[in-house]
Order: sequence, then C-alpha cells, then structure tokens
Amino acid sequence: MAALGLDALAVTSLPNVLYLTNFTGSAAIGVVTADRVYFLTDFRYLTALAESSGTAQACPGLDVVTVTGSYDGALADLLASMPLKRVGFEAADVTVARHKWLVDTLATRGSVAELAPTEGIVESLRVRKDAHEIETLREAARRLSQVARRVIAEVRPGVREAEFAFTIDSFIHDAGFSRTAFDTIVAGGSNSALPHARSGERRLSEGDLVVLDFGGVYRSYCVDLTRTVSLGPASPRAREVYEAVRRAHRSAIAAVAPGRSRFDIDAAARRSLVESGLGEAFGHGTGHGLGLEVHENPRISQRRPDVDAQNEAVAPGMVFTIEPGAYLAGWGGVRIEDDVLVTDDGVDVLTDVTTDLIEI
Amino acid sequence: MAALGLDALAVTSLPNVLYLTNFTGSAAIGVVTADRVYFLTDFRYLTALAESSGTAQACPGLDVVTVTGSYDGALADLLASMPLKRVGFEAADVTVARHKWLVDTLATRGSVAELAPTEGIVESLRVRKDAHEIETLREAARRLSQVARRVIAEVRPGVREAEFAFTIDSFIHDAGFSRTAFDTIVAGGSNSALPHARSGERRLSEGDLVVLDFGGVYRSYCVDLTRTVSLGPASPRAREVYEAVRRAHRSAIAAVAPGRSRFDIDAAARRSLVESGLGEAFGHGTGHGLGLEVHENPRISQRRPDVDAQNEAVAPGMVFTIEPGAYLAGWGGVRIEDDVLVTDDGVDVLTDVTTDLIEI
Repeated sequence: MAALGLDALAVTSLPNVLYLTNFTGSAAIGVVTADRVYFLTDFRYLTALAESSGTAQACPGLDVVTVTGSYDGALADLLASMPLKRVGFEAADVTVARHKWLVDTLATRGSVAELAPTEGIVESLRVRKDAHEIETLREAARRLSQVARRVIAEVRPGVREAEFAFTIDSFIHDAGFSRTAFDTIVAGGSNSALPHARSGERRLSEGDLVVLDFGGVYRSYCVDLTRTVSLGPASPRAREVYEAVRRAHRSAIAAVAPGRSRFDIDAAARRSLVESGLGEAFGHGTGHGLGLEVHENPRISQRRPDVDAQNEAVAPGMVFTIEPGAYLAGWGGVRIEDDVLVTDDGVDVLTDVTTDLIEI
Repeated sequence: MAALGLDALAVTSLPNVLYLTNFTGSAAIGVVTADRVYFLTDFRYLTALAESSGTAQACPGLDVVTVTGSYDGALADLLASMPLKRVGFEAADVTVARHKWLVDTLATRGSVAELAPTEGIVESLRVRKDAHEIETLREAARRLSQVARRVIAEVRPGVREAEFAFTIDSFIHDAGFSRTAFDTIVAGGSNSALPHARSGERRLSEGDLVVLDFGGVYRSYCVDLTRTVSLGPASPRAREVYEAVRRAHRSAIAAVAPGRSRFDIDAAARRSLVESGLGEAFGHGTGHGLGLEVHENPRISQRRPDVDAQNEAVAPGMVFTIEPGAYLAGWGGVRIEDDVLVTDDGVDVLTDVTTDLIEI
C-alpha cells in the first residue's frame, strides 16, 4: 500500500475478505489502513463473529463497524470520517455504477479522498498457499479422491445423468465437504462432447464414455477432479482418444515446476494432443488455480495477447488443476483432471485416483 | 435504447442474457442493436446451442459469434467492426477494471464508439413476470411447498444440522428442482437467532426452535421458503415470539396490492413487530424479488435514503418473498417466509404450507 501511495484499501471482494479475516459469511467489507483493519458487517453476522472470538477461526484486532443501512453507505461514512487522501479500491470487483455512487457520496460527505483503482493486491497474496492452506487442500484432495473411487465403483448404465450427479453430491457430502464447489457434471454419450454439459434427463447406457467432473469445498478451500469411464468395453476409437488425453495430462504434469511459465504448461498438453491429431478437439484451457475460489489464479492457458501481458512463471505453493480434454461433436469426449501443487523442486499431485481407462 | 440515444447495448449480466435468449450456460455476452441480437459464446456451448434449435428453448434469429480468445476481446472486435457511436453497457455488472480495458481496447481498434453507462434496462423487463414465468414460478412454489411438508414431517431431535440440511437438499432434488437456490439453512436453538446461520455440527435437540430455510431452481426460476418449528412443546416465550412473527407475516401479505409502495409493505411487517415489542429483533428486510435470481427486484425493505430514490410501487406480475423474523441473541429466532405474486387486484400466495406453530 505504501508503494502504491495508498493510505487505505477498501477490500470488497468477499473471497479476499475471507482470506484476510477468516469471515465466512456472505456480506462484509474490509478497510485496511497502515495500522488498523476495519470490518463492516451487518447484524446477521455479528453474533457469529462474537462466537468465533478466542477460537482458531477468530481474527483478533478487527475494528468492527455494524452496518445498519446500505453497505456502501457505511463504507462512505467510515472513509469520510478519516483524514484520507488516497483510498485504493478493487477495480476488478467494484462495478462502474458502484464506483460512481461512492465517488459522488464521498464528495457530498465532505471527503477529499481520491478513489484509486488497484488490481490483485490481495490476490497476489492468495496465489501462493501457505502451510496451513496446503495442508487443507491436501486433505480436501485426499477426500475428493475417495469420492472419485466411490463414484467409479457405483456408476452404472440405466441411471439418469442428473440422478447420478446427485448421488455424487451425496458422496461429496458424506466425505465431509461443506458443499459442492460447482454443479456436478455427469455427461455420457454425445453429451460427453460438451465440456460444460448440464447433467440431464438422459440415461447412461452401455457403450457410453461418461465424463464425471465434481468438486467440493472443504474448510473454505475448493478441489476439483474429473475422470472419464467407459460403460462396457471401450471401442478402439474411444481407447485411442482416451489414451491421447491421458498422454496430454501426463505431459502437462511433467511440465509443472517452479519457474516454468503457465503458458508452457498449457502448451505441453496442447502439443501432445496436436501430435495425436486432436488439437482441434481441445478448446479450453489446461487448468485453473484452486483456493478460496474454484477458479482463481494461476490460469494454465494459452497466452491471449489482448489480455495477458506477461509470461508468468508458476511458483512453489501454487495449487491448480491439470485437465486436458478432447471433444468430438456428436461422438463424445474425454477429460482427465487432477489437482497439483508446485513444490520447491517440482510437482506434487494432490489427488490420487488411477488414470487407467476403466471399463465398467 | 432509442430514448437513451444508444445504437447498441452490450448485455454482460448472465441472468439478463438468459432472460433475453434462454441460454442457460455459464458464459455468454449479448449485443443488441436496433435490428439484430449478436450472441457471443465459446465452443463449450455451441453444440448445446445448436441442439436447442427448433425446440421451445431455442431463441431464433441470434447472430452467433464464436469466442476463441477472451470474451471481452471478442466483444471489442464485434463493436469495433460496426459503425457505432454510443454503446450502452450494464454499469451494475461491468467492473471498473473491465470498463477501462474495453475503453482502451476499442480505441486501439479504431472504434469511435463511446461507452455509455446504463442501469436496469433488462432488469426493468424482468421485474414483472409474464404468463409463462408466472406459471413456472407457481409450479416451482407448489413443488417447494411439498418439500416443506416433507421437511416438517421428518425433522427430529438428534440429527446434526448439516446432516438435516443435506436431507432437505435431497427432497429438493426429488421434487424436480435442478439445484438448490442457495445453501440450505437448518438452525436450531441459539443458532436460530442467526438469520444466515450456516448449518453446522450442532445436533437438533428437544426444546429447540428450528429455522428451516431452503429454496430451489426450477426451469431456471428460483423459489424460497422458511418455516420455524418447535422440537417438543414450545415454551410460552417461544409461542409468543412465534405468534408475533406470524402476525407480522400476515400484516405484510395483507399490505401487498398493486400500487402499494414496497416500503409500505415492509413497514406493515415492521410496525406489527414493534407493537409486539420485537422491533429491535427484526434486523433484515421483509422480502426480495424472485425470478432468474434468488435475490432480485423488488426489494421489500425500509427505504434507505442514501440509495433508494423513489417510493416505488409494486405492480401485477411481481413475485417476491415475505419473510419477517425476530432474533434474540443467545435465545433463538423465528422466521416465516412465503412467496407471493402481485395480481391485478391484490395478492396470490404461491407457497402453501401451514403457518400454525408446529410442535414436533
């Protein structure tokens, strides 16, 4: 903040507030100054906050401000009550409408504070996980791997996709996750060619390739895993596509090491699929960061010249998915996804489920 | 758009895109001009889009633009390819960072288009539901009422809150909802004093008041219902608080009619609780609109002078919750919530579950 000339930073992004304070409710704003952290929340969460006092979840030293009207009104009141010159706000979180309201309101309340756009201040802390976060993600990945083994053991022809998706949700629940990290995907047959298929009314049937993609939130941290199985013996073409994706998955994991560019890791998967003649069949990125959000930095993707400025290297403590896939419209698709941690000297695969082609 | 001097409107809010096009995926942008609707999406959804062609879900006449790099890059390319002077964007959806990137990128691509902030254009269409939406919400409320009866029949002392929350989720699933509308709340004993309690490890026990708050998404539309039950005979104080909330709930529903201010409806509930000596115990708004989002307009709340400009009237076709509550820290709380439709001459309560105090 000092380097940016800020005498306060308004943290409005909820995952960032959670990161800084351990607050797991659904409404709060943090205001960080050189010597204090103000925490704005409303009565719904005050009791929970008081009850966390003295526990490992407590964040001591917060100056709690009770919001009774609007959150932004309370934020403007607080900022206007301090002799601030330059207040950073999170430009990737605050909308244009909200920004205009804050600027106008600060002026009417006699504040001379300038609102300065910032990006990625808290996110830059979040991208490399600390020992506690790594331990949490490791345990979450262990539990999700157990879920995956149970899923593979129970998937059968005849069940509706949406029904089996809910069965997976119940396994995630049983494994101690507080909730699913996203809508569970069960996509069989030609639906498996849709990487973000909604699980539907279709029944799984003999001969299907079935993409099973699910995730859970464990102590606020997200993990994510995909396996593709064959119901009945796989056709030669299905086996070929599966093994091609498996090679791409291995190549990408082998490319993970501290100092490697995130674009290089993506390129390793992509090059492998091109060599298998499936370059056109892989239309999404190779992976995404995991943490308090299920999609966060680093993005393991092709460099987009219009938005990606740098050739960013991955570093120890980063946790992300590796999930190449191949999708052939009208035929079907394959995706294999694991969660990896960048270590001091390479990579640690946190999830632990066979990548052999399983024929149910 | 003509009235606002716009020759295009970029629709980035996903519920707004869904409203305009029936698209239920997780990434798309719409661009509306005087005579065309451009629809930007990526390969993950193109097949699903093609498959909807000719069905009731199809939105004919879309000019589909395939996104291969970034969505905003594709948006800038499209806007720069047209001779546009003034392009509206959704100021309550677009962040400051994204806005700056779009302005800079349009300039480098030689576009002279000015980006003009707009608010509530599509939302103003969404707030009054059409016949199809009302039918969908009515059916969703009917199904959620069935869920509620099953919940009341099965809640028992001894079960962990989180466990019973998951049981409710399974009932919601069984009733044909595609997913829950929010994290289900089961809050017993002193937890029931926390209106947004996370369902936890605590076990429900004899003597608890238990707040049960849950919702589902049915054909993209959200409904939401709360009942509070007593495990075992209610204490005199519990009965007193329950009946006070029930009177407030009735008063608010009686205040719903076309032309009534949303602030008046809130005031009816609030006044009733004040008369019962529970004014301080009711810290949230009386209700929120339901539709493609579980919290949308109209907000049934106290007027906040700093953000609410007008004394807005409710109108036929609006659907919202009525959910007064009373919360006494350390003791417990009560909330009763139904979903109502404003009709041409009054109100239709869409949910249908007894509000009698139930002692399990």
